[in-house]
Amino acid sequence: MADGIGLTHGADLARPVAGEPAPGRGQGRAKVAVLGATGYTGVELVRLLMGHPGVEVVAATSDSHAGERLDRVFPHLRPCPIRLLPTSAPVLEAVGDAAVVFICLPHGLAMEKVPGLLEAGKRVIDFGADFRLRDDAVYQQWYGRPHACPDLLGEAVYGIPEVNRARIAGARLVANPGCYPTSVILALAPLAGWPGVEWSAVVADCKSGVTGAGRSPSQGTHYPEVNDSLRPYNVAGAHRHVPEMEQELESLVGGPVRVAFTPHLVPMSRGMLSAVYLRCRPVPSVEELQAAYRRRFEGEPFVEVLEPGELPATAHVRGTNRCHLAVTVDGRTGTVVVFSAIDNLGKGAAGQALQNLNVMMGWPEDTGLQAPGLFP
Amino acid sequence: MADGIGLTHGADLARPVAGEPAPGRGQGRAKVAVLGATGYTGVELVRLLMGHPGVEVVAATSDSHAGERLDRVFPHLRPCPIRLLPTSAPVLEAVGDAAVVFICLPHGLAMEKVPGLLEAGKRVIDFGADFRLRDDAVYQQWYGRPHACPDLLGEAVYGIPEVNRARIAGARLVANPGCYPTSVILALAPLAGWPGVEWSAVVADCKSGVTGAGRSPSQGTHYPEVNDSLRPYNVAGAHRHVPEMEQELESLVGGPVRVAFTPHLVPMSRGMLSAVYLRCRPVPSVEELQAAYRRRFEGEPFVEVLEPGELPATAHVRGTNRCHLAVTVDGRTGTVVVFSAIDNLGKGAAGQALQNLNVMMGWPEDTGLQAPGLFP
Amino acid sequence: MADGIGLTHGADLARPVAGEPAPGRGQGRAKVAVLGATGYTGVELVRLLMGHPGVEVVAATSDSHAGERLDRVFPHLRPCPIRLLPTSAPVLEAVGDAAVVFICLPHGLAMEKVPGLLEAGKRVIDFGADFRLRDDAVYQQWYGRPHACPDLLGEAVYGIPEVNRARIAGARLVANPGCYPTSVILALAPLAGWPGVEWSAVVADCKSGVTGAGRSPSQGTHYPEVNDSLRPYNVAGAHRHVPEMEQELESLVGGPVRVAFTPHLVPMSRGMLSAVYLRCRPVPSVEELQAAYRRRFEGEPFVEVLEPGELPATAHVRGTNRCHLAVTVDGRTGTVVVFSAIDNLGKGAAGQALQNLNVMMGWPEDTGLQAPGLFP
Amino acid sequence: MADGIGLTHGADLARPVAGEPAPGRGQGRAKVAVLGATGYTGVELVRLLMGHPGVEVVAATSDSHAGERLDRVFPHLRPCPIRLLPTSAPVLEAVGDAAVVFICLPHGLAMEKVPGLLEAGKRVIDFGADFRLRDDAVYQQWYGRPHACPDLLGEAVYGIPEVNRARIAGARLVANPGCYPTSVILALAPLAGWPGVEWSAVVADCKSGVTGAGRSPSQGTHYPEVNDSLRPYNVAGAHRHVPEMEQELESLVGGPVRVAFTPHLVPMSRGMLSAVYLRCRPVPSVEELQAAYRRRFEGEPFVEVLEPGELPATAHVRGTNRCHLAVTVDGRTGTVVVFSAIDNLGKGAAGQALQNLNVMMGWPEDTGLQAPGLFP
Repeated sequence: MADGIGLTHGADLARPVAGEPAPGRGQGRAKVAVLGATGYTGVELVRLLMGHPGVEVVAATSDSHAGERLDRVFPHLRPCPIRLLPTSAPVLEAVGDAAVVFICLPHGLAMEKVPGLLEAGKRVIDFGADFRLRDDAVYQQWYGRPHACPDLLGEAVYGIPEVNRARIAGARLVANPGCYPTSVILALAPLAGWPGVEWSAVVADCKSGVTGAGRSPSQGTHYPEVNDSLRPYNVAGAHRHVPEMEQELESLVGGPVRVAFTPHLVPMSRGMLSAVYLRCRPVPSVEELQAAYRRRFEGEPFVEVLEPGELPATAHVRGTNRCHLAVTVDGRTGTVVVFSAIDNLGKGAAGQALQNLNVMMGWPEDTGLQAPGLFP
Repeated sequence: MADGIGLTHGADLARPVAGEPAPGRGQGRAKVAVLGATGYTGVELVRLLMGHPGVEVVAATSDSHAGERLDRVFPHLRPCPIRLLPTSAPVLEAVGDAAVVFICLPHGLAMEKVPGLLEAGKRVIDFGADFRLRDDAVYQQWYGRPHACPDLLGEAVYGIPEVNRARIAGARLVANPGCYPTSVILALAPLAGWPGVEWSAVVADCKSGVTGAGRSPSQGTHYPEVNDSLRPYNVAGAHRHVPEMEQELESLVGGPVRVAFTPHLVPMSRGMLSAVYLRCRPVPSVEELQAAYRRRFEGEPFVEVLEPGELPATAHVRGTNRCHLAVTVDGRTGTVVVFSAIDNLGKGAAGQALQNLNVMMGWPEDTGLQAPGLFP
Repeated sequence: MADGIGLTHGADLARPVAGEPAPGRGQGRAKVAVLGATGYTGVELVRLLMGHPGVEVVAATSDSHAGERLDRVFPHLRPCPIRLLPTSAPVLEAVGDAAVVFICLPHGLAMEKVPGLLEAGKRVIDFGADFRLRDDAVYQQWYGRPHACPDLLGEAVYGIPEVNRARIAGARLVANPGCYPTSVILALAPLAGWPGVEWSAVVADCKSGVTGAGRSPSQGTHYPEVNDSLRPYNVAGAHRHVPEMEQELESLVGGPVRVAFTPHLVPMSRGMLSAVYLRCRPVPSVEELQAAYRRRFEGEPFVEVLEPGELPATAHVRGTNRCHLAVTVDGRTGTVVVFSAIDNLGKGAAGQALQNLNVMMGWPEDTGLQAPGLFP
Repeated sequence: MADGIGLTHGADLARPVAGEPAPGRGQGRAKVAVLGATGYTGVELVRLLMGHPGVEVVAATSDSHAGERLDRVFPHLRPCPIRLLPTSAPVLEAVGDAAVVFICLPHGLAMEKVPGLLEAGKRVIDFGADFRLRDDAVYQQWYGRPHACPDLLGEAVYGIPEVNRARIAGARLVANPGCYPTSVILALAPLAGWPGVEWSAVVADCKSGVTGAGRSPSQGTHYPEVNDSLRPYNVAGAHRHVPEMEQELESLVGGPVRVAFTPHLVPMSRGMLSAVYLRCRPVPSVEELQAAYRRRFEGEPFVEVLEPGELPATAHVRGTNRCHLAVTVDGRTGTVVVFSAIDNLGKGAAGQALQNLNVMMGWPEDTGLQAPGLFP
């Protein structure tokens, strides 16, 4: 019965290919720039780029720390001689001769910079939400302002390689997904096409570490307010990750999808765990579901369907680009429950961006992303 | 439309009454004993009893620390001159002239001790699962052994005062509920009788601090394995709290209830947060739901329905017997989502036990339970 | 040899007296006001005052939350009907008919308010540093500005009851000590007068939870920067607690004292642990030291000298006004090492302030401060 | 004046040399075995070895998990196909054709295995204490039993490359140091030979994350007992790291050294911070000290002397083999205070072991150890 799974998106489901090896340390490397290198996603990207044999970081920017060495702001990177340029400089000046530009800026800033970058022949991977929604009106509804370059919304590719690999490969502009959507979409992708799933009322109960809230201090992320406590926030469909989650799931499923999404703030630095509940009639067996999940992610270097009896823990993917999935069925209620664990800064942000770069450059997809997780 | 709420259990819905004041410090006090005083729930109970003006702890037991002063094992209680007796002593010897006995022992031990205690005229509040399930067969199915005194199962009262107040008042034997069931039942009680609720597939996504796992060290609760990580456990309806949750909800609802229940382990010491998702057609408005919740818990000293826009955090109930509830509706999916925060050692265990004692003794229900939470 | 210990301050070493009982709930209570009730020390004070039978909080202020109910800002206090007034209002208006005013404001604000309060016949307990230093010049050197009412510096009493009890009892103005000085002074007080102590180079290696840094968010107290990390700060004698520590120790010792003080930030919310190292020739035995410590703190309700072999943990005093001391001797180096654990918000701030109030009012010193700690 | 620093150990102070590149992924690799791969230090070593281009792990053992795949026990390593052999098997069988054997076993086990391994021509790096002390009698005094092969104590090299590089290079048997000694020795090494240092009473106040206590669960490392708390342990010179610390410092200093050492348990998983206090007359200036420290560690890839004004945080070295040092002088007491931050599993254990391997094999010393830290 799983024959139809994902068939409507066959082109994108191409398995990762080995590609040309990335140029080694002694050879010419692809030049990249990082706009916004002192937020948590930006600095995590730099951390990963430092271990990537095929790239050279030719520019990194930060308005708050312009002029400083990056490793003075972030001693964990030492030694790292990158000196920060101001983000507010004219963008083509800021990025220099970079061929690929990563934008790790707050929502709303990328759309001012992207047109110029594309025009200058750069390729762009944007960490923010500016290019994730394909529909201008939906953007405006959720972000409260008109989009500055709506014409690019159709071109931008939503950057989950396990879903959109082929289109990412050729993209000029990749919208790096939100952490919650990544986590939920990977949990559900194998069920696209599965018969009898009630897509109108999926429940996604998601829990995130505090780095997901960014690096700017606030009352809600002040240590004593978070420590030894747990709380939901932006409940009842108020979180801006809802529309992108539904948009991408609808593409996969080929019909309307509605997600009752609740984010929670967990007293930990990194890590995201989603529990996704959905109904399906007839109720599938856990065995056939697991088989379908394995088939769907076969050969994927970063998505692992855990063995029966195993359950994910966020610490097991800490520092990596990996996603651990566990598929279960609650027999007494006929509920399929899928658990998905990622590092919100890894597969939820910088790791996935680097994976997207590898796809775009035709390099082996795990280049620079092979390091095991850090546990404990 | 809320007229019918809980009508089938009208007797138990009696509001808390002022009762006779508990005897003050200078007067005669009720004598109580604590079996198993060196687990987390036991010692939390002693902490609360120390501040209760109407009780005197005449005995406390512990096999692991027999002979020691309790405040040598737990310096936070100092000064507390209680000397621990062995739990394994003959029970009537151990509890002395206590009129009420709290049993804070692992599952399976209470049923050996309770018949003798009742026979000797003691009243018992049992923290374990031995007397929570009314059906012998269900007990055996979930706990894997026959019950030692099935005849008492019908008499035992499930000790959530907000649900079973009247019956608790007269009970000889109170089964103090599990922390997860308390959290979920309080979240759902106001919906008993609500038209159009789909009780066959409630989703309860629950998160607990680590004290919920008890005080015995294990690999899974070793600090570095828990810290900065989050994980589900006992998923797919495997947790033993499922049957008591469903049993009590069925009593309230007057029909079958099935809960897809997922517990998670959160890197914090105390605290439990449940997100309960259910469908209801027609979809109620959040305003009428909140009004119903307020009506249902009006006058309750320990359950608070938060204001619109407020959401609970476990730290806000830390150290207390309180439950904070937030009622929301996810409009796009027609899902009612109720959040419930308690301290798993408070309203989830020792606090509720003390509340039950107050009800049993006819004392004001908040005696010894008025201290504000400890935040941060 | 311990005869001389503390003799120079005999008057202040009076043991706590039972005093008149504080007026009970039904009787007239002393009226108090709290300026700055939404910082961590202020709200902790309110939490304690709520359990004190002899006081009535007639006013509480906050500029950031003026007009709000305090328990809307801090749900752990619920129910607490106090409505916040603006701190910036004229001070006599703000405090109303309070007889005692607690000032929990940032350094520099109290000295503007205190003269008017005293003139109006109020008694004041100030949590800040404005009145801790007796010497105007020292104040100016450490706080970088002239003092607004240097004439009051001589009158203010440094509020550690175990050291200055008699003077506190009659004081109009009590300077509630810093958390670090409290911790270190209690650790060293029994050694005043001990022969052979090298007071010129005491080492105080101190570690604090993050609430010690206050409630205002900052980069350094942002959750992900603190979690799972440890760091020193304000090292090499740069911390402003140095001069008050040395001033009070010099009073006790009757000669110059110099402390090499290092504060550290620990990933925990509450708690302070100090390890104080000092040399003494001849090297005392641990037994005679412990005996001296016991003698010095005999009858003190809040200072406990642990048994030989016991060591303090901050969690054991969490939420209390207690100080746990352990006295040890490192034989191979001839170093006396004293460990001192307090709750930085308790004995390090609000608890001690309430103890000072009890002393000032002639009430039993532990009124409102008897609740055991919250562990875990 | 710093001329004399360390001169007595000139041979060992050789700077790291580039060495032959380690064989690459496609080439022959050095075969290594790990005895005890499921403790925290063992599995951290495997994590690092997985990223080392010059080694092949031919065997890994664990009695508790014999027969399992290592990445089933530790999902953060996935994919890692190593299957665990029993540690209790005959050692030459267990290690197969490994040329170098890492022993990550509890104290006392290595000394039974090492003689056979050396005889068979293997080289050994032992993580335990069995070969750290050069004097049989001192071993027996601290570990309470006679040493099984005292004749090897003289041959074993204490494996801190920054101190003993030359001897490590040629060693058959390297005793990988304890985490506390590594931290303290690096903090003090530059002062060997400095005039006027009082070596008879150094104070080392050290703080460790919980992984330092190993992976076996215990009451003291149970999550709720550690979380949000801080405590000293093994105080007053009782910790077994004292004799190795003093032994190595005496070698460096060329005379008696006594350390008043206090370890603390900090609520974090990884990380160690030491504050080392010592007196020196005349009191050196901070500038000349910093200059001496920079000279001493010039060219060292893993030891960094922070800039004036910078202070270390353990999170900045998390997951690395690095040591961050800050040198300060407390002018008012004439105390030199040196701060040293390492990852107790990195430079404090597995990282240093790998560095030792690189030295032993003549490879560039940072091979496999270049990854930046994981922050946050």
